[in-house]
Amino acid sequence: MASSGYHEGDWYKSSKDIQGILLDISGVLYNSSDDGGVAIPGSVQAVNRLKSAGFKVRFCTNETLCTRQVLVTKLTKLGFDIKMEEVFSPIPAVCHVLRQQNLIPHLLVHTDALPDFGDLVSSKASPTCVVIGDCASQFTYDNLNNAFRVLINMEKPALIALGRGKYYKDGGQLNLDVGSFMKVLEYACGCQATVVGKPAESFFMAALNDMEVTPDKAVMIGDDIVNDIGGAQACGIRGLQVRTGKYRPSDEQHPEVRPAGYVDNLADAVDLLLSNR
Amino acid sequence: MASSGYHEGDWYKSSKDIQGILLDISGVLYNSSDDGGVAIPGSVQAVNRLKSAGFKVRFCTNETLCTRQVLVTKLTKLGFDIKMEEVFSPIPAVCHVLRQQNLIPHLLVHTDALPDFGDLVSSKASPTCVVIGDCASQFTYDNLNNAFRVLINMEKPALIALGRGKYYKDGGQLNLDVGSFMKVLEYACGCQATVVGKPAESFFMAALNDMEVTPDKAVMIGDDIVNDIGGAQACGIRGLQVRTGKYRPSDEQHPEVRPAGYVDNLADAVDLLLSNR
Repeated sequence: MASSGYHEGDWYKSSKDIQGILLDISGVLYNSSDDGGVAIPGSVQAVNRLKSAGFKVRFCTNETLCTRQVLVTKLTKLGFDIKMEEVFSPIPAVCHVLRQQNLIPHLLVHTDALPDFGDLVSSKASPTCVVIGDCASQFTYDNLNNAFRVLINMEKPALIALGRGKYYKDGGQLNLDVGSFMKVLEYACGCQATVVGKPAESFFMAALNDMEVTPDKAVMIGDDIVNDIGGAQACGIRGLQVRTGKYRPSDEQHPEVRPAGYVDNLADAVDLLLSNR
Repeated sequence: MASSGYHEGDWYKSSKDIQGILLDISGVLYNSSDDGGVAIPGSVQAVNRLKSAGFKVRFCTNETLCTRQVLVTKLTKLGFDIKMEEVFSPIPAVCHVLRQQNLIPHLLVHTDALPDFGDLVSSKASPTCVVIGDCASQFTYDNLNNAFRVLINMEKPALIALGRGKYYKDGGQLNLDVGSFMKVLEYACGCQATVVGKPAESFFMAALNDMEVTPDKAVMIGDDIVNDIGGAQACGIRGLQVRTGKYRPSDEQHPEVRPAGYVDNLADAVDLLLSNR
């Protein structure tokens, strides 16, 4: 953005030091839709080129509309080289938290994602927290009321949100995301959700630790100015915004978050990274 | 609340000065439910006694699930002496605002309430604002997304909310109210709704002006600690909370709003008012 005094070239000049790349999935690798979605042009090759060049790659997504297995299968069909163990998503993270803290969840999550909760689903005991994930069309008044009633009857309402995104692009249009519905429960119950997934620091750090890369040697590439870029930067990770997915031109005037750089798409980011390798 | 140093007797000691009574409807006059609801014991007689004693009475409701006519008919069937022109509700108020400011609304309101919007419904022009009312089970993902997409595409998102209540009691249980869904749109679009209805000062003042009573000579009786009591008190009107409807014991420890008094129900409030007349 030369007009605002920002030089796009700066972020990758030190790319010889970059060892690890965190990639958002929806809006960066592919555009989702009801029929499986389509790869964003150049993204399949971009992932291959990153891996071939020796970069460590992890996929950091807040996707909770399906199981990780279904997501990986879908992306593999689109041509991506992606393995289950490279995907960091909020459900495994929240399952870890629930087990660690002995919490019994009321799950306001999409039925397609339930298998990833394993035996945490079938608990008969009274819930001690509410977990809200993206439910898309399953965000019904009844489902929201049921979660609300569980929460309002707790002495101290405990709400865990799988991400806090405002909206995402699906089927070519913007759709309300889990964060917007998290606000329903926060407001109605006078509580504040604990977020698992982006932009939680622990979530980014888990992916970095897995590839044994420190924040200063990593780049996060995403389409969400707040949760991808802002979240990564809060951990000391360079954040790069792509102009695909839910990106909107107004993001470039965001009052709080200023990415290390903008690229038109993932392929362009990889071009820049490799050109300086 | 002797324990907290509060004396319940104080609020009506000066009731000789009280000329006008504002009554919330749901949770004060009756408990609503899908089959029409039931009058709260003593409330039908309480309204009659207020009117017989010469008090001016207006009904101040944030009800937007049906037309005013349907509401008045329902309450009349339950035995209440209530006339259309005594009922102040957000839809006539917002229609006035829309006409005055030449706004074209996208309506996220219950279909049963549409007749009260008259010719404002059928406008073919592009909307210049979104109006959100209580939609109950019509708060679907699709309906919320449609309103969201209208709003996010405005240069400056203009959102008008018909009330900002968190929840209400219906069919014996708590249900999410319009304010909780207003938060979806506020968060997703980074805007703040203008509220028409309680607790807006202009709404209370319209009812007071109609009965030609000044705030210091009026009492608001409601079950909503924030919107009924807090809203009225912000206008200089005494606010009295009933322990019916959505009232919860925790309301009596509300961090910001402290009613002039509590009564078990409307009948008790009228007993106290008349005892000092």
